Amino acid sequence: MSEFKRVHNFNAGPSALPLEVLQEAQAEFLDYKGAGMSVMEMSHRSKEFEGVIKTAEADLRELLSVPANYKVLFLQGGASLQFAMIPMNLRGAGVSADYVVTGTWSKTALKEAKKLGASRVAATTEATNFDRAPEAYDFDPKAAYVHFTMNETIHGVEFFDTPAVPDGVPLISDVSSDFISRPIDVSKYAMLYAGAQKNAGPAGVTVVILRDDLLERVPENLPVMLDYKTQAEKESMYNTPPAYSIYMVGLVFKWAKKQGGLAAIEKVNREKAAIVYNAIDNSGGFYRGHTVPEARSLMNVPFRLPSEELEATFAKEAKANDMIGVKGHRSVGGIRASIYNAVPVASAKALADFMAEFQRKNG
Amino acid sequence: MSEFKRVHNFNAGPSALPLEVLQEAQAEFLDYKGAGMSVMEMSHRSKEFEGVIKTAEADLRELLSVPANYKVLFLQGGASLQFAMIPMNLRGAGVSADYVVTGTWSKTALKEAKKLGASRVAATTEATNFDRAPEAYDFDPKAAYVHFTMNETIHGVEFFDTPAVPDGVPLISDVSSDFISRPIDVSKYAMLYAGAQKNAGPAGVTVVILRDDLLERVPENLPVMLDYKTQAEKESMYNTPPAYSIYMVGLVFKWAKKQGGLAAIEKVNREKAAIVYNAIDNSGGFYRGHTVPEARSLMNVPFRLPSEELEATFAKEAKANDMIGVKGHRSVGGIRASIYNAVPVASAKALADFMAEFQRKNG
Repeated sequence: MSEFKRVHNFNAGPSALPLEVLQEAQAEFLDYKGAGMSVMEMSHRSKEFEGVIKTAEADLRELLSVPANYKVLFLQGGASLQFAMIPMNLRGAGVSADYVVTGTWSKTALKEAKKLGASRVAATTEATNFDRAPEAYDFDPKAAYVHFTMNETIHGVEFFDTPAVPDGVPLISDVSSDFISRPIDVSKYAMLYAGAQKNAGPAGVTVVILRDDLLERVPENLPVMLDYKTQAEKESMYNTPPAYSIYMVGLVFKWAKKQGGLAAIEKVNREKAAIVYNAIDNSGGFYRGHTVPEARSLMNVPFRLPSEELEATFAKEAKANDMIGVKGHRSVGGIRASIYNAVPVASAKALADFMAEFQRKNG
Repeated sequence: MSEFKRVHNFNAGPSALPLEVLQEAQAEFLDYKGAGMSVMEMSHRSKEFEGVIKTAEADLRELLSVPANYKVLFLQGGASLQFAMIPMNLRGAGVSADYVVTGTWSKTALKEAKKLGASRVAATTEATNFDRAPEAYDFDPKAAYVHFTMNETIHGVEFFDTPAVPDGVPLISDVSSDFISRPIDVSKYAMLYAGAQKNAGPAGVTVVILRDDLLERVPENLPVMLDYKTQAEKESMYNTPPAYSIYMVGLVFKWAKKQGGLAAIEKVNREKAAIVYNAIDNSGGFYRGHTVPEARSLMNVPFRLPSEELEATFAKEAKANDMIGVKGHRSVGGIRASIYNAVPVASAKALADFMAEFQRKNG
């Protein structure tokens, strides 16, 4: 393979993938293990692709210790389509669902759920501009489910404790931006879902982990592509799945296992997060983190500078130094560094050094 | 690049992609034009990706001469999700839609539409086992739209004339399996849609070409991912689009232009189809095509042999000779050769030679 350039990639998603994974995919891009065709050209009903999707599922089950009574689905449409599919499939006519609102994504999930039926806010941190996990909850013990967002990609708020929901109320979480970034106890959740394009692969596939008993709630006559029961019965192959994205996600799962699994990955993620948060905390207030320390996301680090002008200069100079994607989300401004699984420690260090140097020149 | 094997790929979808396209994607897989990252790792809001998606759209507009008053969308979920989105968005409360049923896919589209409201069969060829286009239609002049399937991938039935619908009734066609295989007059249709994984790219992106005025029909409060109006307003980027699949589709569009556009591509497709249909017609009845000659698909050639045993042997021996994907769809059996844009003439010839040889040994 010829020379190639590699930047420090702080994109919020799509985002950095492990270089080894990209190199493996590149090497077999034209001819998958002697099949004489690309993975992109293989029938999804072929033995080769069956191997791809089954192995991806098995590796994910191993990584997250997914219990046997959970289905693993590979769907399309991102977390945004799940925002609609969850109430369509799991709420039931006339029943209300509870939403915990801690940032842009949980707020959007609630908005979608409200279009389709009764939905309630069990907690919100909007009063403090989404800078923390809720301190208290007002759960409806009859709620069809409780939904929360494990990591708010824009506001940089991550849950490290599982909300204590009333007995028997299924807990559902959008884990798009901290999926496979640390071990979690899947058995505490009725459903987890993640757009792959942060830690797990390219955009275009959504991983859904769903406890079997929830499928009993699925109403008759949903459009087939929006029906968890059909997707589960057909093992994500009712129609042609996003095959290449599933293949890439499978390579990432294999890579994660090779790193030593999620405990080992969490260790590195904590190391990277400490490097960047320390750079903020040691700046004497020049850099101001958005989130209260106990809810600081290990994945997305949003922070501000003394002025919007300095933020613009920071983003521009970072880019000139091959640090890509540090501009905050257009809805909130500021700076955000996303340090997903595939971002190396060296990139976090390079960013911290750049932050110190930038402050020296502009502080 | 090292040595690689390349089979004759007759898969029905996902299916063969142009080798030049695969090689180009492979060469820039790690580092897209010096950006220092893979296309898979780029933010969908970056200038680089904006270039990718805008160029893909522009090239498609050029290839198909898409009029300016049509939107081009890149969505997810395959044609199967369009089966639901079309009635959700375009039928209107209490209004009925007309469906032309010529095979498995149009029948499935009708089934989905029926779940969501009033739907009517304007013509069906089921009585002759979906071997032709309809000879007559019974259109409802008040129908919200007429839906038909330009090419039935399983039954190998292709429309070469546009059904003459009543004045003012929008005509919608699923062109998944003959998309960009020949020139068509887009202005005759209110909407065209195609899962990309036949002629246009890998699975995971659906191209929708939609006339502006249809957007006025979109009801309020649809789930946002199922709402054509939102998708059009956000230029397919309400959320993260299937970025890499869009990139690949863009490379295929560029390749199609380089071949001389759709007229040149049709010429080659007709040459390939003639080679395979001649092999059938010259077999003295050993091979029997499914479709009446005037509706024979240029893309999918289903045929039978004297017995199911011979069909199984045929598929097995074809595979041993590196001709992949000739087994008919599990729902109908038999043999099917899919000869999409990227299948070279040499593959059609190899298949015809193999058919002659197989008949000689088994006839």
